[in-house]
Amino acid sequence: MSTGNNAYVPGLEGIIGAQTAIAMVDGANGRLVYQGYVIADLAEEMSFEEVAFLLWEGDLPNHTELDGLTSELGANRDLTKAATTALDALPKDTDPMDVLRSIVSVQGVEHRLAKPTRPLAVHATASFPTILATFHRRQQGLEPIKPRPDLGHAANYLHMMNGKESSPEIVRALNTYLVLLADHGMNASTFTARVIASTESDLTSALVGAIGALKGPAHGGAPSAVIEQLEQIGTPENAERWMRDARKRGVRFMGFGHRVYRVYDPRAKILKAMCERMNPKFYALASAVEEMALTILHEEHPERPQSTNVEFYSAGVLQAIGLPKEFFTPTFATARVAGWSAHVLEQAAHNRIIRPQSEYIGPEPRKPVPLAERG
Amino acid sequence: MSTGNNAYVPGLEGIIGAQTAIAMVDGANGRLVYQGYVIADLAEEMSFEEVAFLLWEGDLPNHTELDGLTSELGANRDLTKAATTALDALPKDTDPMDVLRSIVSVQGVEHRLAKPTRPLAVHATASFPTILATFHRRQQGLEPIKPRPDLGHAANYLHMMNGKESSPEIVRALNTYLVLLADHGMNASTFTARVIASTESDLTSALVGAIGALKGPAHGGAPSAVIEQLEQIGTPENAERWMRDARKRGVRFMGFGHRVYRVYDPRAKILKAMCERMNPKFYALASAVEEMALTILHEEHPERPQSTNVEFYSAGVLQAIGLPKEFFTPTFATARVAGWSAHVLEQAAHNRIIRPQSEYIGPEPRKPVPLAERG
Repeated sequence: MSTGNNAYVPGLEGIIGAQTAIAMVDGANGRLVYQGYVIADLAEEMSFEEVAFLLWEGDLPNHTELDGLTSELGANRDLTKAATTALDALPKDTDPMDVLRSIVSVQGVEHRLAKPTRPLAVHATASFPTILATFHRRQQGLEPIKPRPDLGHAANYLHMMNGKESSPEIVRALNTYLVLLADHGMNASTFTARVIASTESDLTSALVGAIGALKGPAHGGAPSAVIEQLEQIGTPENAERWMRDARKRGVRFMGFGHRVYRVYDPRAKILKAMCERMNPKFYALASAVEEMALTILHEEHPERPQSTNVEFYSAGVLQAIGLPKEFFTPTFATARVAGWSAHVLEQAAHNRIIRPQSEYIGPEPRKPVPLAERG
Repeated sequence: MSTGNNAYVPGLEGIIGAQTAIAMVDGANGRLVYQGYVIADLAEEMSFEEVAFLLWEGDLPNHTELDGLTSELGANRDLTKAATTALDALPKDTDPMDVLRSIVSVQGVEHRLAKPTRPLAVHATASFPTILATFHRRQQGLEPIKPRPDLGHAANYLHMMNGKESSPEIVRALNTYLVLLADHGMNASTFTARVIASTESDLTSALVGAIGALKGPAHGGAPSAVIEQLEQIGTPENAERWMRDARKRGVRFMGFGHRVYRVYDPRAKILKAMCERMNPKFYALASAVEEMALTILHEEHPERPQSTNVEFYSAGVLQAIGLPKEFFTPTFATARVAGWSAHVLEQAAHNRIIRPQSEYIGPEPRKPVPLAERG
């Protein structure tokens, strides 16, 4: 029995879940805007640190502010003793998203029920790469690499993953990826973080919930599936036959479809150009597959708009950067933690508990039969 | 920029977030219904096991089904090696809600991205008491007590907490508490679980998010605060003076206020009677404080309905059962995991990703100034 006046809208599609100054997804014009800045102006110009500051504070930092944030991130990359022990105890074949969910939770216990603040957002953001890289090294039977406070966020992540410094081109590519994926207004994981924060719970709880939501294949869990599908297709020449056949078997094309953009996703556009430059083999196959996917999808639903999503070319960029497939979604989380924590700070500053109604569709009230008479 | 047609409703109040057969909160008549059965008919008659089965399967179990569930719960109470190691690594002063959030996450890594199922719901439900009791024993420097498969859910929890069997009256009281708190239709933690499940993520991720939401003082985090406030008031005679004075200082009365019930919360009614019987000292003070709170709240807002909430008398019942204050909210979670997992199963069976819009209230699109010119 609902006391609401509105009809049930599955998925809350079109319902406004929050007001936010952090990001605007302008689907009609294919624009993503962070605090007023269009993503195309930020992606290849700004460091992830500058963009994280922008999301948290509402504008780009000046020199002093950026230096302050950079040192704060550098100084907070270590894991707590409890987090290190818990991480070492996880089986080697644990899904890195489960590693992140578990170890972010353990790392955060020291704050108990702290009110979300920007320093706590910095601490959490600083810890994601260390958690992932430490686990990656353990998986391979290698000693973890200590974080380097003198390296930027992207460079340090790669250094800890690989045990060596990466080329400036590779670091720059990861930085651009992190900027592009840092926020996207409302989505299932960000909404999760805001619902949790709305109970006056802490930042750690909100981030842990968001990681769990991002893990879902219908949200952030798709980019490794893009690679797997491309591997099955194998060659550009094989694309049409494989894809038409797949469609008959009801197989979904990975990396296509989204609710918001009516024109090409501005992030996918930038990532596509990066793929062409950095990962020509992937690009040759992926662009043929994309063309065929869009052709088939258009034949099936001519009324639907362009639908290459951010995960399609993300896969090629992350592959070129040298990250293992299982670390694609966790690296997405490493970018998005900036946005999640910005949304938590915003929710905490203008809070009202997010508690929708439900509509009861169960049995009419009835009397229970005692166990002895239930047969 | 929103593409939705609706105005923003803070907190999604009155918006329908899901259709559910699991529970109905009939606020106008003060009824809580699980799958058609009124809570007053279940609370003191049914075991938690029967009610968990009801929430998951839609009706009460017969003998064979109940025996099956009881053995399945009994057989799945142990923690994994990774979970035990992680638990032992947590600092002794960790908030037990953070223990639960972290160790449920670690315990769940073995399932990776499994589709939510009833056996997985049973495994998770079976593990909550073990996690809490193991940590409680560690806090006190005592060896954990092994779970006893021959004991029911409530009896085994108390056995593991205290190292001895509890009286039938105490076990029965905890059982009733667990039944009363097992579900409540939509609320912030259940909604969190459903949003996470809607991305096709796994049960563990959904439960870990829900625990984080329940932790918030605006949701499940209040019952220990009830005790603390009663301790400050001290005696029934002191209630009026303390409370009128507190009100002048803007202090919120703990255990009052809810969005849904227009008449007395049916759960609070049962818990109040249990308090009177089991915890007369608490009852004498609490009932005086309740009367005064309702008088003052009525003077301030005569238009508002009765507002003693479930947490007010929960505190007295859990105290009589002998649980430490810090374990009140985790024990709430130990009940609610049955409802959370039922909602996850229901969401997974009729899924659409829960992804509301946001309304952008940030700066108009602007051009970034290069760092060198930012001063």
